[in-house]
Amino acid sequence: MYRTKSCGELNLSNKGEVVTLAGWVQKNRKLGGMTFVDVRDRYGITQIVFNEEVNKELCEQANKLGREWVIQVTGVVEERSSKNKNIPTGEIEIIVQELKILNESEVPPFTIEDNSDGGDDIRMQYRYLDIRRNPVRNNLELRHKIAFEVRRFLDSQNFLEVETPVLIKSTPEGARDFIVPSRMNPGEFYALPQSPQQFKQLLMVAGIDRYFQIVKCFRDEDLRADRQPEFTQIDCEMSFVEQEDVLNIFEDMIKHIFKFVKGIDFEGNFPRMSWHDCMKLYGSDKPDMRFGMTFVELKDLTEGYNFPVFDAANFVVGICAEGCASYSRKQIDALTDFVKRPQIGAKGLVYVKYENDGSFKSSVDKFYDQKALAKWAERFNAKPGDLMLILCGDDADKTRKQMNELRLEMGEQLGLRDKNKFAPVWVVDFPLFEWVEEEKRFYAMHHPFTSPKQEDIQYLDSDPGRVRANAYDLAMNGVELGGGSIRIFDSQLQNKMFELLGFTQEKAMDQFGCIINAFKYGAPPHGGLAFGLDRLVSMLAGLDSIRDCIAFPKNNSGRDVMIDSPSAVDKEQLKELCLEVKLG
Amino acid sequence: MYRTKSCGELNLSNKGEVVTLAGWVQKNRKLGGMTFVDVRDRYGITQIVFNEEVNKELCEQANKLGREWVIQVTGVVEERSSKNKNIPTGEIEIIVQELKILNESEVPPFTIEDNSDGGDDIRMQYRYLDIRRNPVRNNLELRHKIAFEVRRFLDSQNFLEVETPVLIKSTPEGARDFIVPSRMNPGEFYALPQSPQQFKQLLMVAGIDRYFQIVKCFRDEDLRADRQPEFTQIDCEMSFVEQEDVLNIFEDMIKHIFKFVKGIDFEGNFPRMSWHDCMKLYGSDKPDMRFGMTFVELKDLTEGYNFPVFDAANFVVGICAEGCASYSRKQIDALTDFVKRPQIGAKGLVYVKYENDGSFKSSVDKFYDQKALAKWAERFNAKPGDLMLILCGDDADKTRKQMNELRLEMGEQLGLRDKNKFAPVWVVDFPLFEWVEEEKRFYAMHHPFTSPKQEDIQYLDSDPGRVRANAYDLAMNGVELGGGSIRIFDSQLQNKMFELLGFTQEKAMDQFGCIINAFKYGAPPHGGLAFGLDRLVSMLAGLDSIRDCIAFPKNNSGRDVMIDSPSAVDKEQLKELCLEVKLG
Repeated sequence: MYRTKSCGELNLSNKGEVVTLAGWVQKNRKLGGMTFVDVRDRYGITQIVFNEEVNKELCEQANKLGREWVIQVTGVVEERSSKNKNIPTGEIEIIVQELKILNESEVPPFTIEDNSDGGDDIRMQYRYLDIRRNPVRNNLELRHKIAFEVRRFLDSQNFLEVETPVLIKSTPEGARDFIVPSRMNPGEFYALPQSPQQFKQLLMVAGIDRYFQIVKCFRDEDLRADRQPEFTQIDCEMSFVEQEDVLNIFEDMIKHIFKFVKGIDFEGNFPRMSWHDCMKLYGSDKPDMRFGMTFVELKDLTEGYNFPVFDAANFVVGICAEGCASYSRKQIDALTDFVKRPQIGAKGLVYVKYENDGSFKSSVDKFYDQKALAKWAERFNAKPGDLMLILCGDDADKTRKQMNELRLEMGEQLGLRDKNKFAPVWVVDFPLFEWVEEEKRFYAMHHPFTSPKQEDIQYLDSDPGRVRANAYDLAMNGVELGGGSIRIFDSQLQNKMFELLGFTQEKAMDQFGCIINAFKYGAPPHGGLAFGLDRLVSMLAGLDSIRDCIAFPKNNSGRDVMIDSPSAVDKEQLKELCLEVKLG
Repeated sequence: MYRTKSCGELNLSNKGEVVTLAGWVQKNRKLGGMTFVDVRDRYGITQIVFNEEVNKELCEQANKLGREWVIQVTGVVEERSSKNKNIPTGEIEIIVQELKILNESEVPPFTIEDNSDGGDDIRMQYRYLDIRRNPVRNNLELRHKIAFEVRRFLDSQNFLEVETPVLIKSTPEGARDFIVPSRMNPGEFYALPQSPQQFKQLLMVAGIDRYFQIVKCFRDEDLRADRQPEFTQIDCEMSFVEQEDVLNIFEDMIKHIFKFVKGIDFEGNFPRMSWHDCMKLYGSDKPDMRFGMTFVELKDLTEGYNFPVFDAANFVVGICAEGCASYSRKQIDALTDFVKRPQIGAKGLVYVKYENDGSFKSSVDKFYDQKALAKWAERFNAKPGDLMLILCGDDADKTRKQMNELRLEMGEQLGLRDKNKFAPVWVVDFPLFEWVEEEKRFYAMHHPFTSPKQEDIQYLDSDPGRVRANAYDLAMNGVELGGGSIRIFDSQLQNKMFELLGFTQEKAMDQFGCIINAFKYGAPPHGGLAFGLDRLVSMLAGLDSIRDCIAFPKNNSGRDVMIDSPSAVDKEQLKELCLEVKLG
């Protein structure tokens, strides 16, 4: 061992001890005849001291130490004259007797400080230096703790962690699979799992009863803001349960983790809201419930005033921003620009200020008199000083999505999205099917194994869009932390689902043959869910991106810029795999 | 919840309670007017009872229940008249009041019993039924427990579990990588990791200090007896340590696991043996130390007797099988056939029986008199009643390997390979390089980052074959459980290694550029190792194959016969990846 103590553990109780430390040079200051060096390791920082008068040679050696050099020192623990109360080791320093340089370092491309001068790109390229910084390492430590505690919780609840294969079979539905050519089976490919969905259901057929796995999953998708081609799920499944059982046990798990990491106790049960209400009130299936500002529908109140924009729209919806009647023209213009951005796509924004004197001032004063606007304000439950913001459109869903963006923006501006506040909500009663207009067909909103609600099975043929699923998501602060469903375990109902989703029997067998066969041998009722570990850690760490809690993330092109991957491979290697690259 | 109790928890203390159970029909017996059904879940088996006289209709329903049907029953816990002391629930039975069939089952293709009538192939095809069997499920439960306890141990020792990427860069050295085409980067490929070697070293450069990960690794190798294309490692790395530190902490870990799982306390420290001694005494770098029968070299004693076979051989080696002088001609012929099998490849086998009367009888009596054979016996430390078995050859290493096989076979025949005995040994002082005759060049025996022993660095240029590495394996019962090394952390020494291994600077940068760069910024001294989780679990479960402790293993052609993977993929999918399959 190159050390007897870490750089984070010494204090006055160690005074007089001879210790050996090893670590990186954080800082090197020469003050008169004294040289002070801060030595850093994962556990902390300790100040070591060299005195020219005591040992000139040693001190000269110390003066040469550069940032991030790796050193080993032996010396005596002494009380500091000027103490640093901000760090645990701040009351002591080491009077060095021996110094050994274990490794030198080039000057790092950015400072290894909590607030680094390095931009994102260079920090990613030199991620091994970035991780030396406390904030990044803290995220990785938190991730370790959360994963470990999730395992401890689930183990205590009789869940077995079972590893499912990474080299599986491609199932072209939904997002794209990564595929892996098999050398031993020329022309054939494995696929990397988007989730262990089929395997966890097979484990239920196998009688495992309670399964979980913290597992890497893969999606070859174009990467939007906060997606990674590989990500980690807390994947769970239980037998002989109904939706209520799944929700209860995993609500307990999430509460346990928040208590463990943050000391937070949630009051009572997590609220539940139907998917339909989420869309109606928040325009999102992952509503940010840290603040209100729920949607108010106005179409009926806007009619009869000859305002052509509202008259032509099928749908008029607004939110009420408390205390924002004082917004300036410039601020309102900025909001208008915000909703008109192509990513959001609204045509314009109508505002109504409820002035402190009780009068109304709006961008539609030409059409709506004070009495009409007062009726709107009444529906909004607005008070003097509030600002009503209104959007309209032909398609209610699209308009709601636009309004969702505006609501989140207003929440941001008003400081209502506090990172230290956590507002969970179970979103339930998802529709079983999603109509895809472009293809004029229904898709499974979750996946084809999701069970319809018993009472809605009667509408499967007559009105599929009306059928609700035993599916649920846990949303928190506008982020989907996880979701799942009760599965179909009846072969006939499963076949019906495949039929409704447009699978021929051949295609269903080709893609899902294994599970279809398994269901013939006594499948138990079962259901489960999966949480995104990256998202959960990000939430608890207060991060804006999942990237910051992943040791070696990829960029938006799916590249690891540190190891320079993906990369070209040898022709020979491709030949062995019976493959040729055909560009363009 | 479909149940109030599991099928494994009821006993006399529950007498009189009304309970609901759910599970699979294990057995269904009609005895007079009574029907007895064994209901099974993961936790056990409970007998449920139907009485024709009490409820005829219910009893008739029960009579129809087939094996593996899924049922839910409600009834009263009663004391059994004929108790079964072999199972925890054997003193009670449930008098059924309600029966619900949750799912029917076709007749399973093999019996769901501890000793099934199903062969390996059909059990693999229907693995979801195979896992319902206790022995298979027990292995998965044990695997869960071991993995969890490894995590608990390492967490308590300040190790952080850090997830490293699965989509990495191909490094063509050694075994073959699986590669993954990147759609977003046409013509480029990721590779799946054979181990997270470079990433764990980068994490040491990053100051993580103590890292571990239970992680899937991948090798596209032709699969021999006990290999899988994907396998699981307990991968570990530490900073500021020397070999002794690594050995100590992981010896503690292994001891902890054996104590936890088996209640076994190992006496004192694990023995250590140099690689050289292992080869000399056992002909293997993973010797089975459960028994002795170490090698004895005889060449000098065989000379001067005009036995052309030994005279022509460079190397003569034997073992002494205690008490086997009574082996019949047939038994000895079988041993001769064994060593002459092509997989072993010996030309023949010489035997010497040390008869109980003190005389010798051998297959080389024509050449060696009693006095000569007595000298052999003396070297073997043989006693009357023993059998000496001798092989010879030109190449000492090859002959030792053949003798290793024979030794293991004799150990088997003599019952010396007891599955309940565990004999660990640290194999140390591996050579740094391995000479590959076919290519007339040295290869790294472990990998190019392995550190040479300080005192042997002087021979790097003059006599590379003599240089020993700070590398170590933990072998147990003839199986390599794990291994690792202290790494090079000095850039110059690392460059020297690449040079000796025949890498040009360009090639080294192309393959290992990231780590070569990282080493410029203050790499700490570090080292680590990796254990095979599959092997560790197999060892503790007393299994002959790692396959039996993997939920969904692949066969020797790398196929998952259950999900039928690998398989062909759509032309469209390949086109998106800019790939074409070119068979033959």
